[in-house]
Amino acid sequence: MNEHDQEPPVLASLRDGVATLRLNRPQQLNALSDAMLEGLQRELDRLAGDRSVRCVVLAANGRAFSAGHDLGEMRRLQGAEPCRALFARCSRVMLSLRALPVPVIARVQGVATAAGCQLVGSCDLAIAADTARFAVSGINVGLFCSTPSVALSRNVATKRAFDLLVTGRFIDAATACAWGLINESVPAEALDAAVERKVGEIVAKSPAAIRHGKAMFYRQLAMPLPEAYEFAGEVMARNMLEADVAEGIDAFLERRSPVWAT
Amino acid sequence: MNEHDQEPPVLASLRDGVATLRLNRPQQLNALSDAMLEGLQRELDRLAGDRSVRCVVLAANGRAFSAGHDLGEMRRLQGAEPCRALFARCSRVMLSLRALPVPVIARVQGVATAAGCQLVGSCDLAIAADTARFAVSGINVGLFCSTPSVALSRNVATKRAFDLLVTGRFIDAATACAWGLINESVPAEALDAAVERKVGEIVAKSPAAIRHGKAMFYRQLAMPLPEAYEFAGEVMARNMLEADVAEGIDAFLERRSPVWAT
Amino acid sequence: MNEHDQEPPVLASLRDGVATLRLNRPQQLNALSDAMLEGLQRELDRLAGDRSVRCVVLAANGRAFSAGHDLGEMRRLQGAEPCRALFARCSRVMLSLRALPVPVIARVQGVATAAGCQLVGSCDLAIAADTARFAVSGINVGLFCSTPSVALSRNVATKRAFDLLVTGRFIDAATACAWGLINESVPAEALDAAVERKVGEIVAKSPAAIRHGKAMFYRQLAMPLPEAYEFAGEVMARNMLEADVAEGIDAFLERRSPVWAT
Repeated sequence: MNEHDQEPPVLASLRDGVATLRLNRPQQLNALSDAMLEGLQRELDRLAGDRSVRCVVLAANGRAFSAGHDLGEMRRLQGAEPCRALFARCSRVMLSLRALPVPVIARVQGVATAAGCQLVGSCDLAIAADTARFAVSGINVGLFCSTPSVALSRNVATKRAFDLLVTGRFIDAATACAWGLINESVPAEALDAAVERKVGEIVAKSPAAIRHGKAMFYRQLAMPLPEAYEFAGEVMARNMLEADVAEGIDAFLERRSPVWAT
Repeated sequence: MNEHDQEPPVLASLRDGVATLRLNRPQQLNALSDAMLEGLQRELDRLAGDRSVRCVVLAANGRAFSAGHDLGEMRRLQGAEPCRALFARCSRVMLSLRALPVPVIARVQGVATAAGCQLVGSCDLAIAADTARFAVSGINVGLFCSTPSVALSRNVATKRAFDLLVTGRFIDAATACAWGLINESVPAEALDAAVERKVGEIVAKSPAAIRHGKAMFYRQLAMPLPEAYEFAGEVMARNMLEADVAEGIDAFLERRSPVWAT
Repeated sequence: MNEHDQEPPVLASLRDGVATLRLNRPQQLNALSDAMLEGLQRELDRLAGDRSVRCVVLAANGRAFSAGHDLGEMRRLQGAEPCRALFARCSRVMLSLRALPVPVIARVQGVATAAGCQLVGSCDLAIAADTARFAVSGINVGLFCSTPSVALSRNVATKRAFDLLVTGRFIDAATACAWGLINESVPAEALDAAVERKVGEIVAKSPAAIRHGKAMFYRQLAMPLPEAYEFAGEVMARNMLEADVAEGIDAFLERRSPVWAT
């Protein structure tokens, strides 16, 4: 249980503006132990302030993407307060993924269950191996996946989310893609190429535009239509003041590639 | 028109924790007459307080699931007040399905139109024969399906809902499934088996977990993301205090079936 | 650039209660120049007050449906204020489509990008040639499609919308249909017939019912469930007072076609 004495539960790397966070408790199916959640939070806090980062990939070592909370640790919690603290810590990680100024892509190579499925739902984009499977299976141990349901029900239709939550059943990657939980399902051997392609598309864009956009996107989603338009128009007007837009339009009109200043 | 003098408009039965409510005006295509709505409300109120109930199946006798409001009765209403009262009564039935502490599965063996389609949308889960068809067809008699649109538009994408509402056209069960209005479309002869399988999956779970979960699920859906996480985390912490979770985790770790206390 | 000196940027026609607005800057791929937005707003304001109109078709001349904002005009804007004004003007057009008392069908014969894709999302219904393509591609010139994202994210699942917004990539009409952005994808040569069929279905309905319904539909979508039911029930009670409902029910019970009074 103290594998994190030897190896950090989350491995972080950065190359060419692309940060990779890699869940690293493969023997424990990357269960979200306290140490794992702390590791994730620490890395996410660090990335939030690093302007050199353009895109984040959330990946995992081993067969599973993540099996959710660590049942052994959970079993030892006494009383409501430590439980509340655990779910608050986990929710903070999910909200931090959302709050990052750059897009986060889940690279899902294996099963993602319970809070592991919530991680996928909380990323902006998700690409999975067609052998990956998804479930919110807490119900099988008597614990309804309440916090995972928050992410799940904002990704897929209501009756589909409810079905998964009360049955705990698995869906395959093709179904997850058809339902909108992930963006792509590809053969396992093509997973890295698919993630790299998506990353490549994103880092080719104006960093300023992506930052303006991600923060705006989720905020307008929660607004009534007229307010959403007013807010989005204001953000777009500020985006227009970036030098990148003049360069982008000029490049487009001159049929050349833009060179972003930001 | 007074068939309910002989036979109750809703038949209720209970076996092994599974309550079945069966619409029983087959000659009138299970139109939601006053008597039918009263019968449904009475049964739903009764089920809401019956802790032995684990799952509810909403079924129907005859060829149709339900053709919606009783047009003959509706035609005789004079002035706005009785109309308001009718729609309020019908909406109360729909909200009572949602408010039941246990999952409700619609067993859709035939056409479900207008408020009949709303019934399907208001259940937590729906399984239909592939011969079933769905429409919100009030528009064909000059009455836009306004209250059915509330349920419909919370199940399917906006443009699809709008299309059905202004054209009154039918969709088949496969389309309803692709759009998320129902969970499964199966051959008519496999309908009972599919419903029983789903019921079986649900009643095998911890009753406490299902109760915590259903009430939480719809409430969090209406909240902004941070509030939803806070609320869901609180519910999950309370769920953790149930003896079923200790038993569930122990059973899982010991690779045996759990025995729920609740 | 002053083609609108010769030809109006929007052509309007009215036949048998069906108004057609046709974007008419084919050489500029129907970019939404100031003149185009003004023309659209003028026509929409006029249509809003014309009770003889039963349905609106938004169409376009040339190869493209609309390429979004006019990049040349945009490039010449100085400072935030004119940008704000431009997006406010554009948002007002989108909200006016929504506010029209009758259904608006987008007839999409070619590419719809950025604010052009937003136009499609802002119509109540959309039918496209299977050769049409859709993108929110502002990101390619350094300008995140913020206002288009408002319409897009209310039509398609969150991760799909985010993907299109950060990559600027195109989807074909079949994908747009599978995602709910449009209602139908048909062979180009069948586009007019498909639009006419939908228009025909709509104008055959009670005008009063359609008006009650459209205004109610989007308003209830933004409400919590109990309030939505109360509001929809009130609208439906008012709809019931229209003579068309009595006629519609009588016609249905007598198996004849209704004759609407309104």
